[in-house]
Amino acid sequence: MKGLKDIRNVSVLGSTGSIGRNSLEIISHFKGQFKVVGLSAGKNKKLLYQQIKEFKPEIVSLRDKMDADELKAQRLDYPIEIKYGQEGAELVAGYEKNDIIISAITGINGLKPTMAAVKSGKRVGLANKESMVAAGTLINREASKSGAEIIPVDSEHSGVFQCLKKENKHEVKKVILTASGGPFFRLSKKDIQNQSVEKALNHPRWQMGKKITIDSATMMNKGLELIEARWLFDLPPAKLGVLIHPQSIVHSMVEMRDGSVLAQLSPTDMKIPIQFALTFPHREESVLSSLDLSQVSSLDFYEVDLEKFPLIRLATKALEEKHSFSVALNASNEAAVHAFLKKEISFSDIWELVIEVTEETNKKDIKTIEDIFKIDQETRERTWSKIRQRY
Amino acid sequence: MKGLKDIRNVSVLGSTGSIGRNSLEIISHFKGQFKVVGLSAGKNKKLLYQQIKEFKPEIVSLRDKMDADELKAQRLDYPIEIKYGQEGAELVAGYEKNDIIISAITGINGLKPTMAAVKSGKRVGLANKESMVAAGTLINREASKSGAEIIPVDSEHSGVFQCLKKENKHEVKKVILTASGGPFFRLSKKDIQNQSVEKALNHPRWQMGKKITIDSATMMNKGLELIEARWLFDLPPAKLGVLIHPQSIVHSMVEMRDGSVLAQLSPTDMKIPIQFALTFPHREESVLSSLDLSQVSSLDFYEVDLEKFPLIRLATKALEEKHSFSVALNASNEAAVHAFLKKEISFSDIWELVIEVTEETNKKDIKTIEDIFKIDQETRERTWSKIRQRY
Repeated sequence: MKGLKDIRNVSVLGSTGSIGRNSLEIISHFKGQFKVVGLSAGKNKKLLYQQIKEFKPEIVSLRDKMDADELKAQRLDYPIEIKYGQEGAELVAGYEKNDIIISAITGINGLKPTMAAVKSGKRVGLANKESMVAAGTLINREASKSGAEIIPVDSEHSGVFQCLKKENKHEVKKVILTASGGPFFRLSKKDIQNQSVEKALNHPRWQMGKKITIDSATMMNKGLELIEARWLFDLPPAKLGVLIHPQSIVHSMVEMRDGSVLAQLSPTDMKIPIQFALTFPHREESVLSSLDLSQVSSLDFYEVDLEKFPLIRLATKALEEKHSFSVALNASNEAAVHAFLKKEISFSDIWELVIEVTEETNKKDIKTIEDIFKIDQETRERTWSKIRQRY
Repeated sequence: MKGLKDIRNVSVLGSTGSIGRNSLEIISHFKGQFKVVGLSAGKNKKLLYQQIKEFKPEIVSLRDKMDADELKAQRLDYPIEIKYGQEGAELVAGYEKNDIIISAITGINGLKPTMAAVKSGKRVGLANKESMVAAGTLINREASKSGAEIIPVDSEHSGVFQCLKKENKHEVKKVILTASGGPFFRLSKKDIQNQSVEKALNHPRWQMGKKITIDSATMMNKGLELIEARWLFDLPPAKLGVLIHPQSIVHSMVEMRDGSVLAQLSPTDMKIPIQFALTFPHREESVLSSLDLSQVSSLDFYEVDLEKFPLIRLATKALEEKHSFSVALNASNEAAVHAFLKKEISFSDIWELVIEVTEETNKKDIKTIEDIFKIDQETRERTWSKIRQRY
């Protein structure tokens, strides 16, 4: 039996999103091992209120002050700190009782809270890939100062982490992330261009939030993951690659220089990498049923067609460019996907805009978080202005 | 640069067989790291003589005294010890200057030399699966006494070893060995029965010796590998399984209890596991080209049909039985395969004989190597007598 001392305190940033909800399900299943101490959410106050009742955290944060005030007025029957805004999320991230922080806010909004978590020197389960894309070098520098342990929650990067942990990095020849190819990978280039929001949101394999589902349909998600992998595993661009694998069973592969390829496979469920990030270096019994490959029957692999999915080419270029290029790529993509979801632009406009805006960016190094937000904001403005000019 | 002290001395048992020749190719490629000090061979004295000239070992052994005497008469221009017979192979295996012994004699003949290698406390690259099948507990006991490090050379077990090496064994849910299914797996049960020696020797994926190629066609090879895995990795029978995977790219998989499956993939070439066994814990650049999964395109997986391949069922039973059962299974199989290769029995006679003879064996524990050879001999005699009665 584990004593009370063995219970680890967890804060979940982005608790009402897809990764956040899955994280709380896992924590709930392993009650004796984890306790929720902090939650941060956006605007879904109804769900956050349910989560507060179930998990009794000590600190919570909402995006807006009004929602926070409303929550305060509810008079909970136990003491709880209620915060709001970016600073509120950072306070949850840096809460002193945390042992583990699951960083699962979507987009660049996750950067400051992620950084606060990393600065605290605790374990960070990183699902917010945009923060690594925009600020990989800064996050790595901070982590080596604070001793924070970053464990990826993306299924692909969790797979790489699992395969790499036993290996000498200088013996790695290539890390390959697989991509399902999204809903459109079998269509022609022409047929992809005018797909609707509804069709783009209909992902064949993964149940995810809207932003990442659109990113999967354009394959920008895999582009962001390439950049994330470059910083998470400190690998040179030439050692990173992507293969399309429609079944999404093999999440990633690590080719060693002696010809052996180590791969991580699992059912298509985010609970697996989330649980791994929580329990590492141990593995606990999964609630899911086992992968049965004789049922899956066949695992297929294809090269990525860069004509169909030009954002992969742009992301590959970003691996070699100065850091402002990645910041702009991410910012213009967030702005364009947002506009697509509001049906202001067409599907192919996403990559046309992102490529145009990113290529026009001044290529320079990043020294501070403020640099990142300046470039991010300036890029969004250029993207919005192009959207307005065109439509 | 590595100094002379870093050169590791290798002896190769079974140097003229398929694994032996591949081992010497690898050693030749990594000249600065390995030196051949011992070779043992069977009857292929011409090839052994070439190997002596190339590698200049300090001790060699041939199966027959006459061949050894002939070699002595050749007057080599440097000092070399020339031995013969089982004892000769054991002397090579136990040669004091060895750092690594590649144990690649086929069949139960490899048992005593393998045991001598294990007793010496050095690294043993184990390709002689029959010794593990017949004497797993004895070999393990000896290895923990001597401190010998056994590294599997079978591709499947090398894959398991690579996947398992940084995992906690109690967190393993299942180890799955893949099987190509051999040349006949797509045929009906009826069509398999009367296949010729020539067709059975025509393996679709692997270039191997005759005995193991026939074992692949009956799938006894996978049965032996299951028993080998049971002892190599000290796993209970319920945690071992087989899947048919015709492409032979995924060699094995380890399912962890958290739902992650770790797999090892590589091109179908024994040089990869041999090199791994030599260089472990390091990995050196391979001479082979990289695995290109987009070229392979598809990896398929099927359940084993136990009606078509009843020797897998027998081997699965052996996992639960006392050790004499495995010894008999291996001995009757060696005798039956030998008779099939001489065209004395039909293809389906192999499993009919092996099942009949093995099931009649007294089930008892094994205490010494002598027990094993007694059961082995007695089983062969029963098998031969059944062959004579029937034909």
